[in-house]
Amino acid sequence: MIIVLKPDATKATADELLARIEALGLKPLYMPGAERVVLGAIGDERVIDQLHLESHPLVESVQRILAPYKLVSREIHPHDTIVDLGRAQIGGGHFTVIAGPCAVESRDQMQRTAGAVKLAGVLVLRGGAYKPRTSPYSFQGLGQEGLEILRDVAHELDMSCVTEVVEVGDVAVVEQYADAFQCGARNMQNFRLLRALGQSRKPVILKRGMAAKIEDLLLAAEYVLAEGNPNVILCERGIQTFETATRNTLDLNAVPLIKQKSHLPVMVDPSHGTGLRELVGPMAKAAAACGADGLLIEVHCDPEKALSDGRQSLDTKQFDVLMRELEPFARAAGKRLQ
Amino acid sequence: MIIVLKPDATKATADELLARIEALGLKPLYMPGAERVVLGAIGDERVIDQLHLESHPLVESVQRILAPYKLVSREIHPHDTIVDLGRAQIGGGHFTVIAGPCAVESRDQMQRTAGAVKLAGVLVLRGGAYKPRTSPYSFQGLGQEGLEILRDVAHELDMSCVTEVVEVGDVAVVEQYADAFQCGARNMQNFRLLRALGQSRKPVILKRGMAAKIEDLLLAAEYVLAEGNPNVILCERGIQTFETATRNTLDLNAVPLIKQKSHLPVMVDPSHGTGLRELVGPMAKAAAACGADGLLIEVHCDPEKALSDGRQSLDTKQFDVLMRELEPFARAAGKRLQ
Amino acid sequence: MIIVLKPDATKATADELLARIEALGLKPLYMPGAERVVLGAIGDERVIDQLHLESHPLVESVQRILAPYKLVSREIHPHDTIVDLGRAQIGGGHFTVIAGPCAVESRDQMQRTAGAVKLAGVLVLRGGAYKPRTSPYSFQGLGQEGLEILRDVAHELDMSCVTEVVEVGDVAVVEQYADAFQCGARNMQNFRLLRALGQSRKPVILKRGMAAKIEDLLLAAEYVLAEGNPNVILCERGIQTFETATRNTLDLNAVPLIKQKSHLPVMVDPSHGTGLRELVGPMAKAAAACGADGLLIEVHCDPEKALSDGRQSLDTKQFDVLMRELEPFARAAGKRLQ
Amino acid sequence: MIIVLKPDATKATADELLARIEALGLKPLYMPGAERVVLGAIGDERVIDQLHLESHPLVESVQRILAPYKLVSREIHPHDTIVDLGRAQIGGGHFTVIAGPCAVESRDQMQRTAGAVKLAGVLVLRGGAYKPRTSPYSFQGLGQEGLEILRDVAHELDMSCVTEVVEVGDVAVVEQYADAFQCGARNMQNFRLLRALGQSRKPVILKRGMAAKIEDLLLAAEYVLAEGNPNVILCERGIQTFETATRNTLDLNAVPLIKQKSHLPVMVDPSHGTGLRELVGPMAKAAAACGADGLLIEVHCDPEKALSDGRQSLDTKQFDVLMRELEPFARAAGKRLQ
Repeated sequence: MIIVLKPDATKATADELLARIEALGLKPLYMPGAERVVLGAIGDERVIDQLHLESHPLVESVQRILAPYKLVSREIHPHDTIVDLGRAQIGGGHFTVIAGPCAVESRDQMQRTAGAVKLAGVLVLRGGAYKPRTSPYSFQGLGQEGLEILRDVAHELDMSCVTEVVEVGDVAVVEQYADAFQCGARNMQNFRLLRALGQSRKPVILKRGMAAKIEDLLLAAEYVLAEGNPNVILCERGIQTFETATRNTLDLNAVPLIKQKSHLPVMVDPSHGTGLRELVGPMAKAAAACGADGLLIEVHCDPEKALSDGRQSLDTKQFDVLMRELEPFARAAGKRLQ
Repeated sequence: MIIVLKPDATKATADELLARIEALGLKPLYMPGAERVVLGAIGDERVIDQLHLESHPLVESVQRILAPYKLVSREIHPHDTIVDLGRAQIGGGHFTVIAGPCAVESRDQMQRTAGAVKLAGVLVLRGGAYKPRTSPYSFQGLGQEGLEILRDVAHELDMSCVTEVVEVGDVAVVEQYADAFQCGARNMQNFRLLRALGQSRKPVILKRGMAAKIEDLLLAAEYVLAEGNPNVILCERGIQTFETATRNTLDLNAVPLIKQKSHLPVMVDPSHGTGLRELVGPMAKAAAACGADGLLIEVHCDPEKALSDGRQSLDTKQFDVLMRELEPFARAAGKRLQ
Repeated sequence: MIIVLKPDATKATADELLARIEALGLKPLYMPGAERVVLGAIGDERVIDQLHLESHPLVESVQRILAPYKLVSREIHPHDTIVDLGRAQIGGGHFTVIAGPCAVESRDQMQRTAGAVKLAGVLVLRGGAYKPRTSPYSFQGLGQEGLEILRDVAHELDMSCVTEVVEVGDVAVVEQYADAFQCGARNMQNFRLLRALGQSRKPVILKRGMAAKIEDLLLAAEYVLAEGNPNVILCERGIQTFETATRNTLDLNAVPLIKQKSHLPVMVDPSHGTGLRELVGPMAKAAAACGADGLLIEVHCDPEKALSDGRQSLDTKQFDVLMRELEPFARAAGKRLQ
Repeated sequence: MIIVLKPDATKATADELLARIEALGLKPLYMPGAERVVLGAIGDERVIDQLHLESHPLVESVQRILAPYKLVSREIHPHDTIVDLGRAQIGGGHFTVIAGPCAVESRDQMQRTAGAVKLAGVLVLRGGAYKPRTSPYSFQGLGQEGLEILRDVAHELDMSCVTEVVEVGDVAVVEQYADAFQCGARNMQNFRLLRALGQSRKPVILKRGMAAKIEDLLLAAEYVLAEGNPNVILCERGIQTFETATRNTLDLNAVPLIKQKSHLPVMVDPSHGTGLRELVGPMAKAAAACGADGLLIEVHCDPEKALSDGRQSLDTKQFDVLMRELEPFARAAGKRLQ
């Protein structure tokens, strides 16, 4: 519920109302504006109905938030959120490319790959240390050693870094090494993990689940914001459909639709979204054109030898060409490539 | 099967081989090039195996076409096909927008809509006279009267026009009025209709079925080409998925994938592909960015009063803005907007 | 709209009201019951609203049909429809198995297959003469010759027969040879074909499209009933999903759901619904258990040599075993196997 | 890899080979049979290739396991696995119904519901204490208090109980209270949780993810078995498709297909698989008919007041009727209802 106070309402009035909201077990929000103070009350609908604020003499208007998600909704937060991710900003006028290999395999592999993507203009390095793999017999990632390599290589090159976290018990260690968490598609509805990430203040790149509706993704983000972490970046990475020629079906419709419904920044992962190296470039440009705030792209110094997802990884030369080709599309969309 | 002749093979050799191909009930193709003559033999694989051309003294090489589609494949036709559609060309360096209402409703509606899209730079007008509708109680189109209005209005404005054909029995009358046929998603596997369209020489815009894999679409196009009509334009218009926030899921992955597999031009219909007016613009730009050859866009002079699909139609002003915003994306993709 | 007349309303009153309904371009229905006469008015909702029958002195009540489909709805026709299909009845207390090969290939193949399924207790023979095939280079059916073989073999064995019709232009010839039409999944929204079948009085087995919601299937059936043919049998045959281990995903949920919404009989095709011979038996039993009125099963005298769909065809011995195993499941469901 | 030893191979030979397998970091399996000893070597394919056991004088044959899953495969374990779940057995000749409310809400609700399902013949009670909910503002379960109520009520009635576990950190406490773990659809690819459950010896009911192929489900089970817990029960509970009339599409094809590929028991959840109370009964019977080993059914003493999933819960009377109606279907399938 959004509560707009009258111009003559004082801070004391706001505090009194916020206390009433909190006393009912609801989450109180204080949003002072230039002309009016706006309050929010978030939580169980039936409890909200017991507030009866319409009749308060200093309340100008009261408005239900129609969407099932609240804090992520544009209704309560009309302006675009910009998330600081180390050296980069996600959202606003930036079009940010996060690049690196699917998995951290070795220090040498990371240095070669990171050096190349840095030269191509990238500020944020990616690389997985904990890999969720369909088969227990596939490479599962280097774990903490991988985190160390990722962080060291990023620091050497004055880059920021992001990596996936797959378990509540790993949140603390990942937070220590990475500038942002990645929450993968298979964990989009791991609500305990979402809550744990909500208790951090580091940015969370939340990837859409393979069977998740856009509304499910926004509700998953709501879990993180409801715990107090406003730094969520949504990521479209392809959904599960009947088409088998591509690994997933990249649902770019989601980009403008999320922009309409939510204030959070939206990135696109054309590597998983297609599963085919040859389609990564065209779909990266399409993502820029339809309003995305950036990309996650898998780049490997030697894709043929990659321990995972080699088929969808660009080599460093292909990536360099792509960065140059992307620029006019980002510009046409009113954004600056970084 | 692709048969490359030696440089010293004469036209008589080619004719002899083509006769052998035809005698087996296969479709013979004659494709003379600058340095070599190439022949094709299309049809039942088991019959092709009986040709035994490898040992012919004037045959340089013989190559099986691996894809299940043959004539639409890049293996047999490496260069992009450009289709003449009245005043416009589809493919090559052009990015062509075909616009107009979902259904022809009246002469006045067509004149107002067509006048506006013409002013915005459009060469080809669309409008349905035979409407396939889910319910028998919905507006089913004006039939032949609609064809007349469409043709008249297009001619008055010096535009070309396209319209949907839904039945073998209507092919002749639609051919009389329209510059190109549209074959809708629900008829993509109406193989009799495809064969009938293959006997015309007018262009066919073939829309992908809601449950059709990309390979199914290419095989549907093969039906048209196999009957002798090479003028096929493929159209991605969204597939059926679990997502309910949009009418369909526009599968832009299909655009670069089809470009890789086939020489045929590819257009995109962001109106059906999203079902939501607000998403048409962003997805139109994305289509341009990922390499499409053009767009089909629903525009209505008064969308609120449209007899079908009003929710996804742009009004004429929104369309005019879109055309101007599209230009830099088409240019960045190396194409000229028309 | 359903109009219940008062007990003292005469036939003249009914006729007067039916004339008013017809005069507005609506479809009038006359449904006399033991105690009350019920009328129906079907068509454009906005026109129905102009009838103003609520205030008529001999009208007891007026009720809108909430479903988008009307004639197929249980609201207007609460009792199960039983369709006569030659020697068999579909619906009511019967569980009817229609069996035979995917395609009619030769007289010998039909005689051997039909003889075996007849011995196993089958009354209705199936076999395709016009085959819709994804590739133009696959076997397309024997056409009219196939119809003749099918009819002859059925008659020799005192069986009835059904076959697929794919085109408006073929309806007359198929009607001449077959006891019922099959309308395939790819033609479920070929609305012209549905209208043409609605003008016949022979039964129509309408298969659910691969991307068709249950509501779409019911609306497709409405096209047939709206033209005057009440003899429609719905058929669940699997939908398109992401699962690739089976050819389609057989959606048995559809069976009890359709039974709830509609009075029409429902059959199940476990051959296409699974695509795998080994799954046909278990899913046939499941169909019987969840309330289906019968099955369409592909049987071939020599599946390894079948010109289409051999992988999903039972051989005659497997079919015989299945028929015996099916019996207790049909009985547990309160039906008699035929 | 499956290694069949010659009849004259001694236990010492087997031990020597198992040591070689283990030394390479592979999982060794010892499977003595009546006539031959069979060994297994499970793990990275490339490492397995280094074993070179074909040439060993006491090895009769060596066979690669073709499926990507190994321990769950019928290739390595041809006979059906029967899992002991407290007072019940899952698999073999039993058809076991596990019933209870979606969520544990109160001691009274559990006593009333459990008393009724016990009377209807149920041995295993279900009820969720940790509920994964799409929205953070929905009821999230009673946690440990819920576990206590569930266990107490089950013990009072001499029943066993199962409940969902959503987090590695909760495995120990859930193990203390429940006779079996339920791993929900959203956690089917929470590989850390699967590994943790693999370190227990209590049974794991593993539900298929909404976007999971059958092969993905089998690979998820492989994670549990690879950690040493052989007591896995697979559960089909509906997949995500385009159909919106039902909550999910229950994919019963999965039941006979899994039976063919794996030795593990398979249960079906028709409550989530349909989302509609009216469809639970028909689909429960269908599950019995196609070969499932049992059912998970949601029953609530007062569905209208249920805090979650009331729409799909049977009331206790409906459940009692269903149990009686199920019996002939279980019997026809050669199983005994419990």
